[in-house]
Amino acid sequence: MQVTADDRLAEALAEGAALGARLFDALAERSADPPGVTRVAYGEGECAAFAVMAEAAVALGGEAAFDAAGNQFLTFPGVDRGRTLYVGSHLDSVPHGGNFDGAAGVILGLAAAAVLERLGVVPAHDLCVLCLRAEESCWFPHSYIGSKTALGVLPPDVLDTVTRSDTGRSLADHMRDLGFDPEAVRRGATRIDRARAVAYLEPHIEQGPVLVAEGRPLGLVTGIRGSFRFREAAFHGAYAHSGATPRTLRRDAVVAAAELVTAMQGLWERMERDGHDLAVTFGIIGTDPARHSFSAVAGEARLCIDVRSRSEATLEEVRRRLVEIGLDIATRRDVRLDLGALSGSTPAAMAPALLGRLRAAAATVGVDPIEMASGAGHDAATFAQAGIPSGMLFIRNRNGSHNPDEHMEMADFDRALAVLVALLRQPKEQWD
Amino acid sequence: MQVTADDRLAEALAEGAALGARLFDALAERSADPPGVTRVAYGEGECAAFAVMAEAAVALGGEAAFDAAGNQFLTFPGVDRGRTLYVGSHLDSVPHGGNFDGAAGVILGLAAAAVLERLGVVPAHDLCVLCLRAEESCWFPHSYIGSKTALGVLPPDVLDTVTRSDTGRSLADHMRDLGFDPEAVRRGATRIDRARAVAYLEPHIEQGPVLVAEGRPLGLVTGIRGSFRFREAAFHGAYAHSGATPRTLRRDAVVAAAELVTAMQGLWERMERDGHDLAVTFGIIGTDPARHSFSAVAGEARLCIDVRSRSEATLEEVRRRLVEIGLDIATRRDVRLDLGALSGSTPAAMAPALLGRLRAAAATVGVDPIEMASGAGHDAATFAQAGIPSGMLFIRNRNGSHNPDEHMEMADFDRALAVLVALLRQPKEQWD
Repeated sequence: MQVTADDRLAEALAEGAALGARLFDALAERSADPPGVTRVAYGEGECAAFAVMAEAAVALGGEAAFDAAGNQFLTFPGVDRGRTLYVGSHLDSVPHGGNFDGAAGVILGLAAAAVLERLGVVPAHDLCVLCLRAEESCWFPHSYIGSKTALGVLPPDVLDTVTRSDTGRSLADHMRDLGFDPEAVRRGATRIDRARAVAYLEPHIEQGPVLVAEGRPLGLVTGIRGSFRFREAAFHGAYAHSGATPRTLRRDAVVAAAELVTAMQGLWERMERDGHDLAVTFGIIGTDPARHSFSAVAGEARLCIDVRSRSEATLEEVRRRLVEIGLDIATRRDVRLDLGALSGSTPAAMAPALLGRLRAAAATVGVDPIEMASGAGHDAATFAQAGIPSGMLFIRNRNGSHNPDEHMEMADFDRALAVLVALLRQPKEQWD
Repeated sequence: MQVTADDRLAEALAEGAALGARLFDALAERSADPPGVTRVAYGEGECAAFAVMAEAAVALGGEAAFDAAGNQFLTFPGVDRGRTLYVGSHLDSVPHGGNFDGAAGVILGLAAAAVLERLGVVPAHDLCVLCLRAEESCWFPHSYIGSKTALGVLPPDVLDTVTRSDTGRSLADHMRDLGFDPEAVRRGATRIDRARAVAYLEPHIEQGPVLVAEGRPLGLVTGIRGSFRFREAAFHGAYAHSGATPRTLRRDAVVAAAELVTAMQGLWERMERDGHDLAVTFGIIGTDPARHSFSAVAGEARLCIDVRSRSEATLEEVRRRLVEIGLDIATRRDVRLDLGALSGSTPAAMAPALLGRLRAAAATVGVDPIEMASGAGHDAATFAQAGIPSGMLFIRNRNGSHNPDEHMEMADFDRALAVLVALLRQPKEQWD
């Protein structure tokens, strides 16, 4: 019986997939908190997850190291040891979350390292599987702490001003508790030399329903959406008797709010048709329980507006139109629109060249990923903004994320593994 | 100097107006509860108000009597003692309410009796100024207790099952406390012989802004609106990530609710243009504070729908269209509409002949009242439903009612007094 290269690859992939499955099981066991798992940022579950990954890496011949903030670098030497390709994600979870969000990206990196090792392939550059901390903002209400500290760009005051939701203690305190060095973080210490970073690739379960709906296992992320938010917007009108106040004399905050929601829905539809990447959400709406009544026109209606797009220009246009439409409604209905404070984030484009290589890698293993935006934020946005070519590979997942029912089929993980291995086997010339 | 009939009338009206002003002052003093007044149904303030009115009636030569439920009948003998024209309203108030809601109707009746007495005019039939109890449903959550007990039509179980909001004790207990006879009420005892009732006229401050907006002092009420209500309606969709869930895969309860509010507003506008009397109000709307988030599509939105019309057919049509529109939205948006329990009341038409006499009376004193529906409920609805020709005269009032800022100008009260006196002076033949 002749053993072909294809057979050897298939066998190596099967072993890598088996390692992946074992790591997911170990992780679930070490962070179980029924229903689901809990891996508190800078807490027990996250630390256990880091240990599981380090142990696996070392068994595969990798080197394990922490940076000053406690992010974990699991490095597999490449042909060119002067440059590094990062693959990774975060290992914390929301309370009673699913086992795949974040972890899938790290485990995929380790499984790929296992496949290369089994095949005796040395990657073109160092492969660093990166375990990031504190991505879920439910623990520390600041975005991307892990990638910001890894890159040395965390605003220093965050160390002291941002506290963990369960302990009330600062980020610096929690770093210190685990033996890390918040003062070095404050100075911008980093293990990452941007000039020598080939790319940052973050595989991640899709948190939306697109891949399931499209019947496709993988997605190539073209960009991470930025956002703007008015979290405390409100229309102010006048409370009035519902039976005795004629239509034309009403100052009805609920009707104004409903018109705004409906109009913005229409704007979204039209802009999407015109090719804009966009999501418009009013996740919170409400009259005032202390004052509203079934028999009174409502004098106040609160709204929370979340708008996301891959394009800064689209966000700008929607913001302008929102204000226009809102003020028009306010004028017509004789109510006042108070938009409140504006917050948001900047869109991050993924690197087209990296996308192209991922597409080519997928083609070699017979997978045809769809291209899509990431509506949710990810650490890849920080890497992209730091000037490192960044990309994300989405893996099909049912039931959303941040809940114990999130569900990635291992068959889809295995497809992602085949793509990642194909990418890592691309010869050095293609990367330069 | 010659004294004309006009002079005598003007003098008598001035005296009646002065009595009215004194009664309002006495009432405010006896039920002050800053800000505003509080006259608890079957409580201290209401009893004090009844005493103020009885005293004034007796001083004018009237007879004062209670029925079994404690409603007060202040009777001024007419030419035909076999028939009675009722003028009145309720004397309870909401907590910290205004001094005019309800009371204006009773005081206007007494002021008119004073004018007739001063002029030496005996009315065609007995004039009975009726002081009703317990109209504000904030005390006992059952509508029109005063007029229902006065007419002997209160459902007997209400005596035991309905309790006062501040004491938790039953209506029967409160009647007994004041020396009245709930067992007679239970048997349907009444002092009102419907066959011998000429009419029931309820003067009342307008609780809406129409007369102020129109710059008219008085309104003739053509009917009291009925209503239907879905107080616990809700759209149920699915919570989902706001950034990662595409438009077409959302099951957004907020967008569904907004579309329903907007569509019903449009329907109202069209039906009003077609001549329907209608008011459509969504006084309460809200996502679930326990589950909603600024970054999630809302899986649930609660709504409270209140629809009012003078016409049963219009209510029926709107109810039908509401269900149609709601189900259409639910289908298009893949959400479920749960309308919840239906409640409501029947519209009551005011007597056209009585309206005509009021219009004629107004013309003789140079006032041109507008015709309008009453959107709020009033005891006149009970009288109309009992087959007694009923009417209401609205008096201009600022700032709505059920709050300490309600404000009727005494000049407008005086205009209403002139109209009522002109009505009461209409000769007997005109009434028969």
